[in-house]
Amino acid sequence: MLNFDFYNPTHILFGKGRIADIHQAIPADAKVLLLYGGGSIKQNGVFDQVIAALGNRSITEFAGIEPNPSYETLMKAVDIIKQGSIDFLLAVGGGSVIDGTKFIAAAALFEGDPWTIMEKHGRNVSKALPFGSILTLPATGSEMNDGGVVTRQSIKAKLAFSSRHCFPKFSVLDPTTTYTLPPRQIGNGAVDAFVHVMEQYMTYPVNSPVQDRFAEGLLKTLIEEGPKALANPEDYDVRANLMWCATMALNGLISTGVPQDWATHMIGHELTALHGIDHAQTLAIVLPSMLRVRKEAKRAKLLQFAERIWDLREGSEDSRIDTAISRMQDYFEQMGVKTRLSDYHLGADDISPVIAALETHRMLTIGEKRDVTLDVSRQVLELSL
Amino acid sequence: MLNFDFYNPTHILFGKGRIADIHQAIPADAKVLLLYGGGSIKQNGVFDQVIAALGNRSITEFAGIEPNPSYETLMKAVDIIKQGSIDFLLAVGGGSVIDGTKFIAAAALFEGDPWTIMEKHGRNVSKALPFGSILTLPATGSEMNDGGVVTRQSIKAKLAFSSRHCFPKFSVLDPTTTYTLPPRQIGNGAVDAFVHVMEQYMTYPVNSPVQDRFAEGLLKTLIEEGPKALANPEDYDVRANLMWCATMALNGLISTGVPQDWATHMIGHELTALHGIDHAQTLAIVLPSMLRVRKEAKRAKLLQFAERIWDLREGSEDSRIDTAISRMQDYFEQMGVKTRLSDYHLGADDISPVIAALETHRMLTIGEKRDVTLDVSRQVLELSL
Repeated sequence: MLNFDFYNPTHILFGKGRIADIHQAIPADAKVLLLYGGGSIKQNGVFDQVIAALGNRSITEFAGIEPNPSYETLMKAVDIIKQGSIDFLLAVGGGSVIDGTKFIAAAALFEGDPWTIMEKHGRNVSKALPFGSILTLPATGSEMNDGGVVTRQSIKAKLAFSSRHCFPKFSVLDPTTTYTLPPRQIGNGAVDAFVHVMEQYMTYPVNSPVQDRFAEGLLKTLIEEGPKALANPEDYDVRANLMWCATMALNGLISTGVPQDWATHMIGHELTALHGIDHAQTLAIVLPSMLRVRKEAKRAKLLQFAERIWDLREGSEDSRIDTAISRMQDYFEQMGVKTRLSDYHLGADDISPVIAALETHRMLTIGEKRDVTLDVSRQVLELSL
Repeated sequence: MLNFDFYNPTHILFGKGRIADIHQAIPADAKVLLLYGGGSIKQNGVFDQVIAALGNRSITEFAGIEPNPSYETLMKAVDIIKQGSIDFLLAVGGGSVIDGTKFIAAAALFEGDPWTIMEKHGRNVSKALPFGSILTLPATGSEMNDGGVVTRQSIKAKLAFSSRHCFPKFSVLDPTTTYTLPPRQIGNGAVDAFVHVMEQYMTYPVNSPVQDRFAEGLLKTLIEEGPKALANPEDYDVRANLMWCATMALNGLISTGVPQDWATHMIGHELTALHGIDHAQTLAIVLPSMLRVRKEAKRAKLLQFAERIWDLREGSEDSRIDTAISRMQDYFEQMGVKTRLSDYHLGADDISPVIAALETHRMLTIGEKRDVTLDVSRQVLELSL
């Protein structure tokens, strides 16, 4: 096992009816900026629950944080905060709203050009406004970590940052808020969580049985519960299990003491920045090919994955590995997330711009052993055509 | 899944050489009370590492916190703090030292009779001195939770308390500090962690696959790694895995959203209070009989335990359950922890005083369904003769 630090102070309030409990988690005299996305929370009753729970606190609304939240949009919220009457942020939505709120929380107190927060991946953040979140879309894990991803549309750059000042003070996870999500978002969410686990699990063995088994527990649960979530949108336990999987997939727990990959995410981010493909869709395109291309480097863990996740114990090593990767790809498709570039109307000509973008963003050597060169990234994308 | 809250702000510093990093985690001007037990840390080099890491901070020593820390001893530390020159506590040791330090941290700032902290199980704690821990004995999980157990020797009472003000600010987990532990403490530690998991897992199903699989991952790892830890005391990875299991077993994670039992612990506490039997030994005595007596109430989870932990898939339900419980009992014995009252020179005459103590401490109905009456507790102990 590798040395590690683990620190995660976010208070999780999980279950039916928990939105009402935010009144205990936010100072009684807080001046709240309420941040959300496209307005679905006004249709499904979540907005009304939040307003009721906030009681007579001062509330300013900031709507319109888009999927892949843009620097341009987020800076408008920073401007509102700088006018001086806000001291607590409340994000209501999915990973994009929460990621965006983290950036806003840090940028509002940042001295200097806020874009440098992204350029330095958060290392220059020394403080942030306090904020909480009410999660309505299980997927990114942003509700229980200190990281976020922000896109600057003007330069088509999608970058990640993190800072220990950017943990939510609390996050409410009420599975009933997800009942009205469209199937595409449930499918994307399950795939996103699945790939988060894989980025932390599918590397090479370092004798970390607890972390491996936790990761495998999440993968198996996502495989079991994902299709049920599509079939029975109002099955409480299924939605609860999916939600807890997505949170556990990226709260720092399963990455303790193990190597991490994230090459699939780095390539995926470029596909989203260039073509607007949903984040989870890009992961579903890249990961199967990534594992096929890097089969030798990941052989031991791929065999473990084949046996423990897909119950493959017979046949040659290569056949077990190939079958396991195909089963995973089938699972993504079963969740409604297409896995080929051609499914998104992209072809061979679209690969070079992705490689160029990786180069621009200095992703010259990525993956757990920094051996995913631009050439390897190209091979991966070619295999995904 | 049941509704739940999860909150755990302890910063874990895990790995070889991490004691040196406490200098970043403790204020530079802190006036430190250094708390430890019997002095083994002066033989194994841990004490010297701690002193070096503390640099030129003011240090007062408080030695002699015993196993099953006593109220009488702990109050002596409270007296030292009340003299006014201490503002940070540093516990160096196992669960007893850390539990004791939590009580001291709360009692030092408590207005009123500190014993009421125990009588009210911590509900009346509103603040505590900040403290960190350096763990040298993987077992209780105290390094990453907010609870403790304190014994008042004068009235032979062993009571538990918890308060969200009593999380360690940080805990250092350096597996090399455990190399010199005697086999009895390694055996006890593995059994303690195992039973902690069982108290949160072996109840009844509530459709919580993530929590079940996390618990099962810990149990399987303890079964695999425990005997190796006895055989090869300086195998770093084995000690690291055991240490991480023990922490994960009781940091609030696997209890999220599920029922909890703890009847075995309640009976075990009385055996320790009355007869001084090691905590883990009492658990090893009680749990196998508890599961046999309560087989019907726990049938579904016992079958899951038999299949997933012990790979028992054939034969009648009852035979699988009986075999699984026997295997568990064999594992405790393999770890050097005896499982019968007679192994500790206790007989039938010693049962009634335990039942009377449970009654005194109002443990009239315990367990996940509050149906472990005093009569059931008596049956359990009779089966453990």
